[in-house]
Amino acid sequence: MGNVLILFHSKSGNTAKMATEVAEGARRIPGTEVRLRSVQEATAEDVRWCHGIAVGSPVNMGILAWEMKQFWDTKMPDDWSKIDGRLGCAFSSQGGWGGGGELTCQSIHTILINFGFLVFGLPDYVAHQFNVHYGATISGEPREPREIESCRRLGQRLAEWVAVYADGRKEEHPLTSGRVRFPW
Amino acid sequence: MGNVLILFHSKSGNTAKMATEVAEGARRIPGTEVRLRSVQEATAEDVRWCHGIAVGSPVNMGILAWEMKQFWDTKMPDDWSKIDGRLGCAFSSQGGWGGGGELTCQSIHTILINFGFLVFGLPDYVAHQFNVHYGATISGEPREPREIESCRRLGQRLAEWVAVYADGRKEEHPLTSGRVRFPW
Amino acid sequence: MGNVLILFHSKSGNTAKMATEVAEGARRIPGTEVRLRSVQEATAEDVRWCHGIAVGSPVNMGILAWEMKQFWDTKMPDDWSKIDGRLGCAFSSQGGWGGGGELTCQSIHTILINFGFLVFGLPDYVAHQFNVHYGATISGEPREPREIESCRRLGQRLAEWVAVYADGRKEEHPLTSGRVRFPW
Amino acid sequence: MGNVLILFHSKSGNTAKMATEVAEGARRIPGTEVRLRSVQEATAEDVRWCHGIAVGSPVNMGILAWEMKQFWDTKMPDDWSKIDGRLGCAFSSQGGWGGGGELTCQSIHTILINFGFLVFGLPDYVAHQFNVHYGATISGEPREPREIESCRRLGQRLAEWVAVYADGRKEEHPLTSGRVRFPW
Repeated sequence: MGNVLILFHSKSGNTAKMATEVAEGARRIPGTEVRLRSVQEATAEDVRWCHGIAVGSPVNMGILAWEMKQFWDTKMPDDWSKIDGRLGCAFSSQGGWGGGGELTCQSIHTILINFGFLVFGLPDYVAHQFNVHYGATISGEPREPREIESCRRLGQRLAEWVAVYADGRKEEHPLTSGRVRFPW
Repeated sequence: MGNVLILFHSKSGNTAKMATEVAEGARRIPGTEVRLRSVQEATAEDVRWCHGIAVGSPVNMGILAWEMKQFWDTKMPDDWSKIDGRLGCAFSSQGGWGGGGELTCQSIHTILINFGFLVFGLPDYVAHQFNVHYGATISGEPREPREIESCRRLGQRLAEWVAVYADGRKEEHPLTSGRVRFPW
Repeated sequence: MGNVLILFHSKSGNTAKMATEVAEGARRIPGTEVRLRSVQEATAEDVRWCHGIAVGSPVNMGILAWEMKQFWDTKMPDDWSKIDGRLGCAFSSQGGWGGGGELTCQSIHTILINFGFLVFGLPDYVAHQFNVHYGATISGEPREPREIESCRRLGQRLAEWVAVYADGRKEEHPLTSGRVRFPW
Repeated sequence: MGNVLILFHSKSGNTAKMATEVAEGARRIPGTEVRLRSVQEATAEDVRWCHGIAVGSPVNMGILAWEMKQFWDTKMPDDWSKIDGRLGCAFSSQGGWGGGGELTCQSIHTILINFGFLVFGLPDYVAHQFNVHYGATISGEPREPREIESCRRLGQRLAEWVAVYADGRKEEHPLTSGRVRFPW
C-alpha cells in the first residue's frame, strides 16, 4: 500500500477544491491510501505516515501563504532530518495567469527539498497549451475539464511514483502503464 | 530622453512577436527611444546604451534558452560591474499555461540582478484573471487582446520607470499618471 | 532626504544583528533617514513611508520565516498596487553555507516584485570569495569583518539607489561616487 | 546495479574537480556504476543509461553556464517525456560565498523537473555551518575537507537513493544505513 497525503491551505475555497481533485487523481492508482488534510487539522504524524505528499497553497504575494509556511516552521522541526526520502509535489491557486502559480510551487518545492524529499513535476500536457510541468496551477477555482484534470493528473502521478518507488510496483510506472499523458 | 532596449531570442517567432508588442508599449511613453534587437544582432553596446531593458526568451526546459544565456555569458562579461543600476524586466513564451513562463522570467531576473540591475514586475492586471506580476508570459504567440496588452503593458511600465527614475520625469509615475492599470 | 526602512524578523538574534549593520551601512550616505523595525513592531505606514526597503529573515526550511510572510500577507494587502516603485533588497542568516541564504533572499525578492518594487543585488565583493550578489547572506551571526561589511554594503547600496533614484542626487551613484566596491 | 551519471561543465577546472569528488562519493555505495562526463563528451545515451544524475556547472551570471543549458536544449529534446522518473541533484562552483551557488543548483533542478526527474538536496551537514541542502556549492575549487566532503556526500546520497528506489536495496536508505550525516 502507498500512503499519499494531500496537505493544503485555503482561504477562498479554491485551493481546497484543487486538493479534492488531487486526492481524486491519487485514487486512480490501485493500492493507494489517501489522506486529505488542511494545515489547520494536519499534524506531523500525517507527514510521517505518508510515502508521498502533495502540498497546496493559494498564491499570496507570489509565494505560499504564511499559514502553510507556519505549518512547516512550527509543527515539523522535530521531524527534520528524520523523514528524508519521501516524494513530493505542489499545487496552487492564483489570481490570474502569470500570477505566481509556478513561483508558489517552487517555494513549496524548496521547503520539501529542505526536508530531504524528492520533488517532481510532470512533463504531461492535459490539453492543448495546458500543462503541469512544475505542479498544478489554476487561476481561481478548478472549473474547466483541463483545470480539473491538471489537479487529478498531479495526484495520479504522485500515487504512481509512490507505487513504483515506495511500494515496488513497477507496473504503475507512467512511462509503461498505458495511462494517457498527452491527449492528442 | 529614456533609452529602452528590447532584447529577445526567438526560434518559432512567438517571442519575437512578443518583443514587437513590448516595444510598442514602450513607445506609449513620450520621450522614449526604443531599440528592438535579437540576441544574434545585439551587442554589449546596446546594453550600455539603454537605461532600461526588457529581456525575452522562449521557455526552454523551464528556463531561458541557451542562446540568450550565451549572450550574457560571452558578450557581456567585460561590462560586468560597470553597468549597474539599469532597470530590467522579462518576458517569455511558453508551450502552455503552467509551462515555465514565470520560472523563465525569474531566471532572467537572476541574471539582471547579477549585473546590478533593478528588476521589476507589475501588480497590474490586463484582464480578468490575467496579469503581468513577474513579467509578461504567453502560451504560444500573443493573439488575444489580453495577451497583446500584457506585452505592451510590460514595455509601457519599463518606459515609465525609465522616465521617472533615469530621466526625472515624475509625471510619468504609474501611480499618478492616470493610465489604466486595472481595466474594471 | 531618502527614507530607508530596515524590516527584519529574528528568533536567535542573528538576523537582528545583521539588520543593525544594514542600517549602519545605509547611514554612510548623507541625507538618509533610517528606520529599523522588527516585523512585530512594523506597520504598513513604515513601508509607505520609505523610498527603499531592506527585508531580512532567518532561513527557515529554505525560505523566509512564516512571521515575515505573515507581515506581507496580513498587514500589507490594503496597500497592494498603491506603493509601486519603491526599491528593495534582502538579507538572511542561515544555519550554514549552502543552507538557503540565497533562496531566502529570492523568496523575499518575489514578494517585493509582487508589490511592484524594483529589487536588486550587488555585483560587489566585500572580500576574497565573499560577495553580496543576491543580498547579504551570513551563516549564523555577523562576526568577521567581511560578514559585517556585507551587511553594511547592502544598506549602503540601498541608500545609494534611494539617493540617486528617489532623491535625484546622481553624485551618489555607486559607479562614480568613488566608494570602494572591490577591495583589491 | 545502480547507474549514476555525473554530468558537468567546467571552464576553470573547479567544477571538474567537484565532479570527480561527486563521483568518488557515489562509489561509496556498493553496486553503483559511475560515469563521469563533461557536457562536451556526454550524449543523450548517457542520460538514458542512468538511474540517477548529478549535474554540475559553474555559476555564470547567477545560473548555470550556457554550455550546460545548450546540452539540455539541443541534445535532449528527443528524449523529453520518455525518460521520466530518474533521480537528480546539482552542484556548482561559484566565485564567492553568496555568489549564486544555490540559485545555480535551483536552475538545474528546474531543468530536471521539466524532464520529469525527481530532484533532491540533503538535510546533511558536513561540518559546522557547512551543509548541502540544495546541492553541493563551493567557492572556487574544493580544497578544505568540508568542501570535498560536501561533493562526496552529494554523490553518496545520489547513489543511496538510486540503490533504494531504482534497485530496491532498502538497506542503503540514509536514515537507517548507519552512515554519518551530522558529524557531531
